[in-house]
Amino acid sequence: MLPIAVDAMGGDRAPGEIVAGARHAAEELGIPVVLVGRPDEMGGTGDLPIIEASEVIAMDAEPGTSVRRMKDSSLVRAAEAVRDGHASAMVSAGNTGATMASALLRMGRIKGISRPAIATPIPVPGSTPTTLLDAGANAECRPEWLVEFAQMGAVYARDRFGIEAPRVGLLSIGEEAGKGSPFVKECWEHLSRPEWVTSAGAEWIGNVEGRDVMTNEVDVIVTDGFTGNVVLKTLEGAMQALIGRLLVAIDTDDVTREAGDTLAPALDEMVSELHPDSVGGALLLGVKGVCVISHGSSSAGAMTNAIKVAAEMVKVDMVGHLTTAAAPQ
Amino acid sequence: MLPIAVDAMGGDRAPGEIVAGARHAAEELGIPVVLVGRPDEMGGTGDLPIIEASEVIAMDAEPGTSVRRMKDSSLVRAAEAVRDGHASAMVSAGNTGATMASALLRMGRIKGISRPAIATPIPVPGSTPTTLLDAGANAECRPEWLVEFAQMGAVYARDRFGIEAPRVGLLSIGEEAGKGSPFVKECWEHLSRPEWVTSAGAEWIGNVEGRDVMTNEVDVIVTDGFTGNVVLKTLEGAMQALIGRLLVAIDTDDVTREAGDTLAPALDEMVSELHPDSVGGALLLGVKGVCVISHGSSSAGAMTNAIKVAAEMVKVDMVGHLTTAAAPQ
Repeated sequence: MLPIAVDAMGGDRAPGEIVAGARHAAEELGIPVVLVGRPDEMGGTGDLPIIEASEVIAMDAEPGTSVRRMKDSSLVRAAEAVRDGHASAMVSAGNTGATMASALLRMGRIKGISRPAIATPIPVPGSTPTTLLDAGANAECRPEWLVEFAQMGAVYARDRFGIEAPRVGLLSIGEEAGKGSPFVKECWEHLSRPEWVTSAGAEWIGNVEGRDVMTNEVDVIVTDGFTGNVVLKTLEGAMQALIGRLLVAIDTDDVTREAGDTLAPALDEMVSELHPDSVGGALLLGVKGVCVISHGSSSAGAMTNAIKVAAEMVKVDMVGHLTTAAAPQ
Repeated sequence: MLPIAVDAMGGDRAPGEIVAGARHAAEELGIPVVLVGRPDEMGGTGDLPIIEASEVIAMDAEPGTSVRRMKDSSLVRAAEAVRDGHASAMVSAGNTGATMASALLRMGRIKGISRPAIATPIPVPGSTPTTLLDAGANAECRPEWLVEFAQMGAVYARDRFGIEAPRVGLLSIGEEAGKGSPFVKECWEHLSRPEWVTSAGAEWIGNVEGRDVMTNEVDVIVTDGFTGNVVLKTLEGAMQALIGRLLVAIDTDDVTREAGDTLAPALDEMVSELHPDSVGGALLLGVKGVCVISHGSSSAGAMTNAIKVAAEMVKVDMVGHLTTAAAPQ
């Protein structure tokens, strides 16, 4: 397998945690990795090969302009490495918009896909994650794009989580077909046509609601990138609030604190199961290559997971499967 | 105070739990209540007065048609009681759409308000709740309506939670002004004009994100009814998933189960603090009267809370404050 190109400069904790995560993936898991960025800032890189890139796109930089102007940035070089056959996938915890733009402009779109979408797996207690897309690539969508999201989401859920015929639902505010905004009703019409279901090997289950996201009622949820991103951040906030409140409950008095100590391992397991980092980052689906978008706050562990996911998606040929599913009939 | 008109027939657990909650509000809290519905189905109603209504709008009935055709339904009669000065407020756990339609058609709109909106308080650990509106009344909105939602939300947050100058934010997918869908950007333009801020006594804080909902960063969040309803149900689902997962963690073995028993009172307190029922239902803001929309699954306790909220909003003259804030300049 060609190495995974890791943007060593992207992320709130770059390059330290990024390089550490990349080294762990290479040295402990045997995944080939190439670091992309400024070699003199990377610290100890062990035996990892490096693709030099002199520029760094800042976390808050305007994506389009940055990618066009900073041709020697780590993000652009990582995407080019995939395009040119020097790497099998790219992984970045940097500027999300710039990661998308680099991948889109350098790798190009899969035929039949109008717009790439971000697919984010949401942890579900006791079950496989629910894949949510678009989780933020396209703040405004056309109804027909959601059919492409549905196809891509189904392929991803099968390749990533082994779900044979993923159940795909449309996020709305009522389960009946007539419920939702005019946009969602139009999406429903498009999604109810059987062609895409067959080509993607999916099961279309109609409208789902916000309360279904963290349940085993659905495998893939399609929505526009605005709503998807709101859902994602609402969940993040809810988890933080609830875990914070749980710590307050445990901290009531000496007796509850002792009980909390006893429960600590089980609670740690719960938190790590529900933590987005443990599922290993989001994927940009629809470009001609595997592109993993990690959380900006990614630790070394999160980075290792993201690299692992990238390698798995390369091995199963997810991009090939997406290309077949999206091929115009 | 005129009595609170309670729709005895609305809700999954009507009339039993509804009547029990109404009796508790009247007998224990001294709040005047009048029950609306079919007297022979209500069971023991104690000394509570009754407004007879022979029809019941089903939970899943089409709202508009039902309200137009079922003129002797408990919902329509409850709204008429407010309009005709026989009741000071209405409370229902029934069909949400039909409750809105009854209130709107019978009570009428406040001058200056284009569309009533559902305001739902979201529990925030250790702080006053965040008021989210529109939480589902209008699946599609015009940008200028969000200014009205902002005015109403600010008045409500002050009257209900005593927040002197409520911080009002616009739900988006990035904190900067330029972030979001074209619709949200237009809303931002409207909301950035100082007039409404003054008339509502609010503080405009710009864009907020889903992760802010359960924090003390913002008091009122405005959004369209589709996104608001998705957020609400996503939070409901997240709470259920997390509490379910917590019970699994506690159930690991005998030792953790014993620790769980010790923590039970503190955990019960946490769950009830975060439970939507404890905040007492959503309000339909913008109609000429207090209208509380309770969760369909409302228990007697939830109903008592909802009646208490209705009585408080009548006492402080929330509708008068809304009318002043929304009055065309």
